[in-house]
Amino acid sequence: MNLLKQAIIEKGEALSDEVLKVDAFLNHQIDPVLMEQIGKEFAERFQREGITKILTIESSGIAPAVMAGLQLHVPVVFARKRKSLTLVDNLLIAKVHSFTKGETNEISVSKDYLLDEDVVLVLDDFLANGQAALGLVDIVKQAGSTLAGVGSVIEKGFQPGGDMLREQGIRVESLAIIDSLANKQISFREE
Amino acid sequence: MNLLKQAIIEKGEALSDEVLKVDAFLNHQIDPVLMEQIGKEFAERFQREGITKILTIESSGIAPAVMAGLQLHVPVVFARKRKSLTLVDNLLIAKVHSFTKGETNEISVSKDYLLDEDVVLVLDDFLANGQAALGLVDIVKQAGSTLAGVGSVIEKGFQPGGDMLREQGIRVESLAIIDSLANKQISFREE
Repeated sequence: MNLLKQAIIEKGEALSDEVLKVDAFLNHQIDPVLMEQIGKEFAERFQREGITKILTIESSGIAPAVMAGLQLHVPVVFARKRKSLTLVDNLLIAKVHSFTKGETNEISVSKDYLLDEDVVLVLDDFLANGQAALGLVDIVKQAGSTLAGVGSVIEKGFQPGGDMLREQGIRVESLAIIDSLANKQISFREE
Repeated sequence: MNLLKQAIIEKGEALSDEVLKVDAFLNHQIDPVLMEQIGKEFAERFQREGITKILTIESSGIAPAVMAGLQLHVPVVFARKRKSLTLVDNLLIAKVHSFTKGETNEISVSKDYLLDEDVVLVLDDFLANGQAALGLVDIVKQAGSTLAGVGSVIEKGFQPGGDMLREQGIRVESLAIIDSLANKQISFREE
């Protein structure tokens, strides 16, 4: 997706060989016009899947997911990383390990909003080690819903998450795949 | 805003005299079509203010804020409740007290994204005791930006936040104001 790659090149910053800072347009400041285009791109790629719901995770997954939901005319559910006061039981729970933080946390979704007849598209801002995506996929399975695929705005192709999901037979659509951040140079995978 | 009030009546639930559960369309499952209408309503109410940026707070403020940003063609910045790994210094920080949780936490925004020439609309899903809004307004002041006003999707009119902000001369626009949840009945303020 050229508009996205352009934003990554112009506004992104490789902080190290592994860390890409995109908080100018994706995960702190958000460019709503770019998000709308991202939503349209996800909707186009998954339009034949009969999707009834989008599942994402707070916080940075919400903007692209809501824009995709607007295009596909389906509700968006975001998994919570922390317990809610008004949402305490009736939960689907998965464990998500963060390699960068070195800790495992629980994410949760109310059973009310993922039903066995749902066809679910999992969306997130980043796909790196794939642990958040695995947790969301696990929640889709627990709900008895059908998984249509996993979409990510930016995949770090040099980390194992995307390939791990593909090897499980899951359709993965990443709008930009970065093959390397070595020497603080952002290199995209050729399409 | 009638579409919103209809959603509150049909899908909301008064859990007690003080707690309104709206996680069917606003803060867990999100209705993107309703969010688009909410974005349009905020944009219309604040269209003459010369807004250059919208400031909200993760997580439930993001969806309405991004939709308003799309309409106003301005970026959205969301304050973080937790520290980011790629965003560790150069921060504007405010303390936010939660009466329901009985604790005070810090919220933060990068100085890069709120400039002194910015005219900022503060948006959030709920306005109740007003502590989150006060924290966001404090961050706008620290940045030297101009505050255009505060918008909330749902104001709990029986809690002091909205009036406290209005008494400070801040323009407050709430798309639905609830005057009472007594006896688990949802009563709106007449417009």
